[in-house]
Amino acid sequence: MNRNDLLSSIRTLSLSHDAAAFAHIAAGTHASDLVDALDALDTDTCLGVLMLLPPPVRADLFAHFPPARQDHLLAAMLPAAKVQVFEHMPSDDRADLYNHLGERARRSLLPALAKMERDDILAMAAYPEGTAGAVATSDYAWVRPEMQVADAMAHLRATALDKETVNIVFVLDPDNALRGTVSLRDLVLADAATPVRAIMHADPVRADAGLPDLQAAELIRRYDLLALPVTHASGRMLGIVTVDDAMDIEKAQDATQLARFGGTVSAHGNDLDVRTTPLKQMFRVRVFWLAILTGFGILTSTFVAAQEELLSQVIVLAAFIAPIVDMGGNTGSQSATLVIRSMALGEVKPGWRDVWFVIRRELPVAAALGISIAVLEAILAWFSKGVGMDVLLVVGSSMLVCTALGGVIGALLPFAARRIGADPATLSSPMITSVMDLLGVFIYFGFAYLFLGDLLLAA
Amino acid sequence: MNRNDLLSSIRTLSLSHDAAAFAHIAAGTHASDLVDALDALDTDTCLGVLMLLPPPVRADLFAHFPPARQDHLLAAMLPAAKVQVFEHMPSDDRADLYNHLGERARRSLLPALAKMERDDILAMAAYPEGTAGAVATSDYAWVRPEMQVADAMAHLRATALDKETVNIVFVLDPDNALRGTVSLRDLVLADAATPVRAIMHADPVRADAGLPDLQAAELIRRYDLLALPVTHASGRMLGIVTVDDAMDIEKAQDATQLARFGGTVSAHGNDLDVRTTPLKQMFRVRVFWLAILTGFGILTSTFVAAQEELLSQVIVLAAFIAPIVDMGGNTGSQSATLVIRSMALGEVKPGWRDVWFVIRRELPVAAALGISIAVLEAILAWFSKGVGMDVLLVVGSSMLVCTALGGVIGALLPFAARRIGADPATLSSPMITSVMDLLGVFIYFGFAYLFLGDLLLAA
Repeated sequence: MNRNDLLSSIRTLSLSHDAAAFAHIAAGTHASDLVDALDALDTDTCLGVLMLLPPPVRADLFAHFPPARQDHLLAAMLPAAKVQVFEHMPSDDRADLYNHLGERARRSLLPALAKMERDDILAMAAYPEGTAGAVATSDYAWVRPEMQVADAMAHLRATALDKETVNIVFVLDPDNALRGTVSLRDLVLADAATPVRAIMHADPVRADAGLPDLQAAELIRRYDLLALPVTHASGRMLGIVTVDDAMDIEKAQDATQLARFGGTVSAHGNDLDVRTTPLKQMFRVRVFWLAILTGFGILTSTFVAAQEELLSQVIVLAAFIAPIVDMGGNTGSQSATLVIRSMALGEVKPGWRDVWFVIRRELPVAAALGISIAVLEAILAWFSKGVGMDVLLVVGSSMLVCTALGGVIGALLPFAARRIGADPATLSSPMITSVMDLLGVFIYFGFAYLFLGDLLLAA
Repeated sequence: MNRNDLLSSIRTLSLSHDAAAFAHIAAGTHASDLVDALDALDTDTCLGVLMLLPPPVRADLFAHFPPARQDHLLAAMLPAAKVQVFEHMPSDDRADLYNHLGERARRSLLPALAKMERDDILAMAAYPEGTAGAVATSDYAWVRPEMQVADAMAHLRATALDKETVNIVFVLDPDNALRGTVSLRDLVLADAATPVRAIMHADPVRADAGLPDLQAAELIRRYDLLALPVTHASGRMLGIVTVDDAMDIEKAQDATQLARFGGTVSAHGNDLDVRTTPLKQMFRVRVFWLAILTGFGILTSTFVAAQEELLSQVIVLAAFIAPIVDMGGNTGSQSATLVIRSMALGEVKPGWRDVWFVIRRELPVAAALGISIAVLEAILAWFSKGVGMDVLLVVGSSMLVCTALGGVIGALLPFAARRIGADPATLSSPMITSVMDLLGVFIYFGFAYLFLGDLLLAA
């Protein structure tokens, strides 16, 4: 069913309240598409449609709504329905939702849940956002090492119906310590009498619960895992991070990185979203960054204003200020993105060895760029304005130094950022430009005094 | 085994040529880690170590090397070894490698392969890079719809040992048309006598072979698939794209986007890589962009130089040029990244509806930013330089217009880029800055003549 048909069917349902029809549609449509269609309705209508579904299906669908929508829907639900949602939601989504609730809502919710769900929520919700523990789900399939394959399969048939995945099965001791992993495929292909321990992959890749979620996603991508086990420091199994979660984590991170580079991330670390962020917050975050850049700009303009004497002697100097100091920022943006990109792909690592490596590669390129652009600028300046040789010397020399220096500084900034624990992309392109502006005017007027200073003495 | 131990073991092997020891290490180490260690060796030594492995293991490891390394290793191999690599490599990696070979190398390779491999290569290598067909692998598991579950399992045991994945099984007609998918899990849990067609997921999500690979990856992420079937227009099965490939595709795309935004992508569309791109190419691509920006800069400086008369009257005007025109670029970078980010996440779509939506949200923010920053700049200017009211008016008004205009233009540029078929991020931050520089000096001197023009008349 295409999107428009789905939308009109949903609208019809919101009026007819035909539960059987909705169940039929829900069975044949993926949750992502259903949620897209339902999201177009207002909260009360949406909730009315959702209540037509049996609780397990409803909770599964609920887990796919964006967090803001989930909060609205929850607020509109009766307490009994709220409890049902929590009882049937997947373990990781449920923990996230719980963490979004206010203190009072949590206190009224917990006693209403069955012990198993309550314990699970408290265990899974205990980890700070951004860690592997916070993303993990406890819905994994497990077997014991001494089980024979036939018994293991029977055990899985009995217990694994509602697990997040059963393609990777985790081999646990009676005290929940992770001994190994075995794939469903290997179980299917093995002899029925083989003990699991003989075919399991002992000492599998695993993540500690406190590992940053981005690193967990990287492990999944690097080792082509379907699910990554997350363990306590003791080695006991907490849960798993599945490959689909890893894809979402990486997608969000790359979006954040671009936002940082453009200077649109708040101090709290949330990305601004052009569609949904309230205009007030959008203004607040952006004006913060722009004010900092304005401050840099005042330093630059104060310095330039102080060169009034030289400027009044050689007015044309004023014309070249912006293009020359900008080139430092342009070259710096280039080299900074190169390094940030390589860091993101894991190819360049923070540390002196890679700093020297990058500098050794950037220096000759930056020097060559500086010379080429300086010559180009000088030629164009001569043709367009017919300036004298001394001004050409000033323009060419400062263009050379600004360009080359900009390239080298831009390449170093991501390392400096990592050193102080910041995301390299926070050293956004506008920040690089402002820093190079300030350095650039020092360099420019430095050369100006060098080559034209005699004019001042003469005057 | 940690990284350093692995490295020294590999070095020892390169001297001892102990095949049994290497086989033991290879069995217990993931391919990604092995390749990392081997990559530290020079080509001939690396090849010597690889030849210690049995051909299937060697080919699997070979597939994990970066493409440049693969080319060097291939060039150093004897023809017989080359053929072995192609025979045993996974179908999708093999097709990619084949496409990298020169014409002569291909002609000498094909006759040496067994018919099955030859046909597979020709079929899989036929798709343009960047399409689902180019990424797909033909190593998938299949069953017939009328098979009973028990027969299907027996069929899989017999045929699916070397498939990329058997967690998702594809249900095909005798003429290879895709009828549905069934998970290994569902096969395991079902009754032995059930026909596959009764438990299969009919009409699954699929991709046409010509679909851009990025969209295929998006389908996998959106629907939480483990493998996406790729079909010909006729509905016949070509191959599958697996979730690990999808993660790699998205990772590469996000890296490219950042590179574009910083102005470091060549006309051929390859990202520059700070570690591996030859210095000459690095210089060529970057000087191209910087030269364009230099050209813009000359326009700007020519215009400013022509305002010589006004500048000599009010020298302090020169001081504010750079900070004011820069603010247009800063605000533009912010709004451009916001829009690019939302486009990348699929939340904002190219088209008039979203253009108006974005403008309606950006206009008030840009206006508010413009007013705030203009006031801030005017206050700082007054405190730091004690300039007169008329200059403050010029500075404040142009700061307001530059900031607000920069924000709006920056938000529109990604849409314009998509309109002409370019990647929005190609309108890199330096490009935005240069455009706003030029507009900015027009605006700045426009206000200067407005508020200070009487000085010229008086002089």
